[in-house]
Amino acid sequence: MQDAKLIAKTHAEHTSEIEIAPSTQLIPNTTVGGQDLFIVGGPCSIESMGQMEAIAQAKLPIQGVRGGIYKPRTSPYAFQGLGDVGLDILSAVRNRHGLPVITEVMAIDQIEKLSAHADVLQVGSRNMQNFDLLKALGDSDKPILLKRGLAATVKEFVMAAEYIASHGNSNIILCERGIRSFDSYTRNVLDLGAVVALKQITHLPVLVDPSHATGKRELVAALSRAAIAAGADGLIIECHPEPDQSISDARQTISLEAMANLIDSLVPIAQAVGRTVRHHHSLGLAA
Amino acid sequence: MQDAKLIAKTHAEHTSEIEIAPSTQLIPNTTVGGQDLFIVGGPCSIESMGQMEAIAQAKLPIQGVRGGIYKPRTSPYAFQGLGDVGLDILSAVRNRHGLPVITEVMAIDQIEKLSAHADVLQVGSRNMQNFDLLKALGDSDKPILLKRGLAATVKEFVMAAEYIASHGNSNIILCERGIRSFDSYTRNVLDLGAVVALKQITHLPVLVDPSHATGKRELVAALSRAAIAAGADGLIIECHPEPDQSISDARQTISLEAMANLIDSLVPIAQAVGRTVRHHHSLGLAA
Amino acid sequence: MQDAKLIAKTHAEHTSEIEIAPSTQLIPNTTVGGQDLFIVGGPCSIESMGQMEAIAQAKLPIQGVRGGIYKPRTSPYAFQGLGDVGLDILSAVRNRHGLPVITEVMAIDQIEKLSAHADVLQVGSRNMQNFDLLKALGDSDKPILLKRGLAATVKEFVMAAEYIASHGNSNIILCERGIRSFDSYTRNVLDLGAVVALKQITHLPVLVDPSHATGKRELVAALSRAAIAAGADGLIIECHPEPDQSISDARQTISLEAMANLIDSLVPIAQAVGRTVRHHHSLGLAA
Amino acid sequence: MQDAKLIAKTHAEHTSEIEIAPSTQLIPNTTVGGQDLFIVGGPCSIESMGQMEAIAQAKLPIQGVRGGIYKPRTSPYAFQGLGDVGLDILSAVRNRHGLPVITEVMAIDQIEKLSAHADVLQVGSRNMQNFDLLKALGDSDKPILLKRGLAATVKEFVMAAEYIASHGNSNIILCERGIRSFDSYTRNVLDLGAVVALKQITHLPVLVDPSHATGKRELVAALSRAAIAAGADGLIIECHPEPDQSISDARQTISLEAMANLIDSLVPIAQAVGRTVRHHHSLGLAA
Repeated sequence: MQDAKLIAKTHAEHTSEIEIAPSTQLIPNTTVGGQDLFIVGGPCSIESMGQMEAIAQAKLPIQGVRGGIYKPRTSPYAFQGLGDVGLDILSAVRNRHGLPVITEVMAIDQIEKLSAHADVLQVGSRNMQNFDLLKALGDSDKPILLKRGLAATVKEFVMAAEYIASHGNSNIILCERGIRSFDSYTRNVLDLGAVVALKQITHLPVLVDPSHATGKRELVAALSRAAIAAGADGLIIECHPEPDQSISDARQTISLEAMANLIDSLVPIAQAVGRTVRHHHSLGLAA
Repeated sequence: MQDAKLIAKTHAEHTSEIEIAPSTQLIPNTTVGGQDLFIVGGPCSIESMGQMEAIAQAKLPIQGVRGGIYKPRTSPYAFQGLGDVGLDILSAVRNRHGLPVITEVMAIDQIEKLSAHADVLQVGSRNMQNFDLLKALGDSDKPILLKRGLAATVKEFVMAAEYIASHGNSNIILCERGIRSFDSYTRNVLDLGAVVALKQITHLPVLVDPSHATGKRELVAALSRAAIAAGADGLIIECHPEPDQSISDARQTISLEAMANLIDSLVPIAQAVGRTVRHHHSLGLAA
Repeated sequence: MQDAKLIAKTHAEHTSEIEIAPSTQLIPNTTVGGQDLFIVGGPCSIESMGQMEAIAQAKLPIQGVRGGIYKPRTSPYAFQGLGDVGLDILSAVRNRHGLPVITEVMAIDQIEKLSAHADVLQVGSRNMQNFDLLKALGDSDKPILLKRGLAATVKEFVMAAEYIASHGNSNIILCERGIRSFDSYTRNVLDLGAVVALKQITHLPVLVDPSHATGKRELVAALSRAAIAAGADGLIIECHPEPDQSISDARQTISLEAMANLIDSLVPIAQAVGRTVRHHHSLGLAA
Repeated sequence: MQDAKLIAKTHAEHTSEIEIAPSTQLIPNTTVGGQDLFIVGGPCSIESMGQMEAIAQAKLPIQGVRGGIYKPRTSPYAFQGLGDVGLDILSAVRNRHGLPVITEVMAIDQIEKLSAHADVLQVGSRNMQNFDLLKALGDSDKPILLKRGLAATVKEFVMAAEYIASHGNSNIILCERGIRSFDSYTRNVLDLGAVVALKQITHLPVLVDPSHATGKRELVAALSRAAIAAGADGLIIECHPEPDQSISDARQTISLEAMANLIDSLVPIAQAVGRTVRHHHSLGLAA
């Protein structure tokens, strides 16, 4: 296999800082890959305005909110996301609270619509090698959050990012979210070795999603601390005002209070590795 | 997870026979899932008219020819397939020799064009859970060859097929092509237990691709025999007039002579499990 | 890693035929690795004299009977086998019916005692790299049935056999019994590609255990046929007079009637690949 | 499967502190599982007195030294360890410097001899389910370092420890050392989720071996920090005065200087999770 070109590190200190939503007045300037950690919280699926408002009003020290609108589900008969209604909710919360939002894009024809309302477009694990989607996102200039495939090697993950870069978009954020293994004790196995390797191979920021990696909420906080200690540039964590009421992924979702405590516990870890945890950035627009 | 509905077996003898190219005069009637095995040969990628003519003129006892036009490649810098030129070659060979052709569809906007020239549209492993593609193929009536994902469970594979069926297209052929494992001796591990399980769970035909499963040409013939003995409805095998000259997957590609010998060796195995190997079906149009 | 020396094939037709119990008048001469398949049946654990008598009296066309006396169990609180009482049962059945017996050896200090009563000593998957046990078995001249480890690569498996050979015992029979994977639909994944590879790398006979490989009795017969078609030299199958009453592994154990039908279905497959299924070999001593 | 009894946590704060070498005047009192981290360094294999002296004289802030005497190697033709000569070296270094030593026991008949010279007996990954060895170690009162099997589930690992405990020895230290995966980029995948889970399931201390987990020295330091942040009670790291000269595992072995820097970097991480890194404990006997 040929090596990565555009996203490969050229020297040890070569890192990229990706700007999130720099062009919108409502959204404060946020970057990924600099000294500040980029911590994202939110539900697996957007379920209602009330749900999203509760998260925004909790004033967690997060730099982005996530929530699925179109959901990739194993079964065609499972909840497929709110669709366009979800987009309206996402957009309203974003504008009211000035929180950058991240949502998943599953098809080329969703790119334009989602780009108008979201600050980061996520490519899910199942689409990591949907090369036509990657190429189309390469034609965009939106920041892309590329999640590692369920059984993708480090090299395949790197080359998937290279697809996006080779089509013109270098605003790429990688995300390790657990890989498949023989052990069903956890849903997947969080591969922090890959995070360290990715930081050595590429200049791109690397996030960690401990929620999908383990599928068990009681493991999320400790693994979040481990991820930051390993050098991750941030986290994506599933949280919900009422975790047990989540339509999807309830078992791995933590409460907003647990989320606040988790972030508190990251502060000294971040400091130990030369990083910082930002306070809540809200513009106070909702006040 | 909810169970499959439309593709689930309702009784032990419940099997579907999928018609290939029934509406074209040039193509003799072929089915998959009946008593006759469905054996497909051809190169990983379509490279030239000469290559495809050599395969067609070998008059192998195959019921279809495969060849990639748009290739999903790990690296954006690797050969991506001939594209539209390949489609012309495929179409010419199909019309001249009356051989049903199978090629991979990677994106929704390729469906219409490929449908005009191919008899079966293949969904590759990397797209097994590209749900938007599956839904769009559900709106078609073309036979779909759905390959198992690199690390897809049997249940996920079944539900991916259910996506297609739930959108209206029940002409689905499953294909086991090896799964990822810890052992790099073979490229993947052929999971014949999954083939047996799929035949018990669904009424759909199930093929086996021993070439991608092992990545080693010297293992292909014995595993082809094993697949038929296990109850597979057919095989997809990479063969090439000059295997070592293959642009992609040379290591797993066998010669046309080896292909002929392999199919000969299947005859008594097929008979032992109540199946038959058809002779070359050519209409002699090229003569 | 260095390559195998003593067990490596020196030319394509180089195969070893291992003699089972050649020195005992009561046991008819049996070999593994020749034209005749070597088919072994029996329960996971020896439970009672009545159980083993029922199997022997069924006069199945098998060439050996298996049954665990000392059982390796995940939990120290699970049934650990009958121990010495089991040995007496095994020995009595062997002498009465002239059936070669296979049982597992878990520790060096069991070798001498088991060797007096069993014709083949099995090394279980968990002990495949218990190198001290392998060396001690290399000092014996008993045929050794070496099962592949749960996550052993083909190369590690080959080198484990080389340990035995390098200490002086070349009576080694390999056994593929499924490897660990991400899919819990089957207990393990039967790796028939490894069987084909092992037959190409070494001159040793290779058996297949479809019962442990799948953990589901409804998959055993079809995979047995596949194994023989792939070139395996025989099978080890869990069967029991009352499968649902098995103390261990009930879910994967078939009835004696199913076992007889399974072996019947192997006859034409064996013939297709140049092998034969022997009739019941009983000396009629029990009559 | 039945659950663990003796090693199961009975309440959230239930943890065990294992005493290392409490009866020897030469060895200062050391515990594993208390507030102090337990950090072990040393080569894969003991190669010479000079090698071990260089490590001891480096006065690293470690609480134990490791080194293999009898080595489990995939090939019978690979270096199998120095054997009894290695034991003399180990013993001399231990007595001269007062450093607790850890070495691997591979067979029951090595237990007595190794117990006279080592403070902790390690059970290697390949022997995690060598149940006869586990039972024999249960009859000892030596602290046992039990490494997770290459493809052992969390439950199997826990039950292997329960074997030792059920035979009377509760001085058990668990060690996560990476599991097998499909990706050959790293030798194994470090499973820190398992570390967090083990700390929740059992009251035993849990160490992490980042050297074997990754097989790449450039990943060791960051994963060591991650392990401590995740809540591990200590580390086992391969270091060598001349890493590139290591007879085995050179690729994953770090220099003594790198080891010192690594431990320095752990200090603030340890503090962030309420743990401490002890200074060099040497009794100064060598001075």
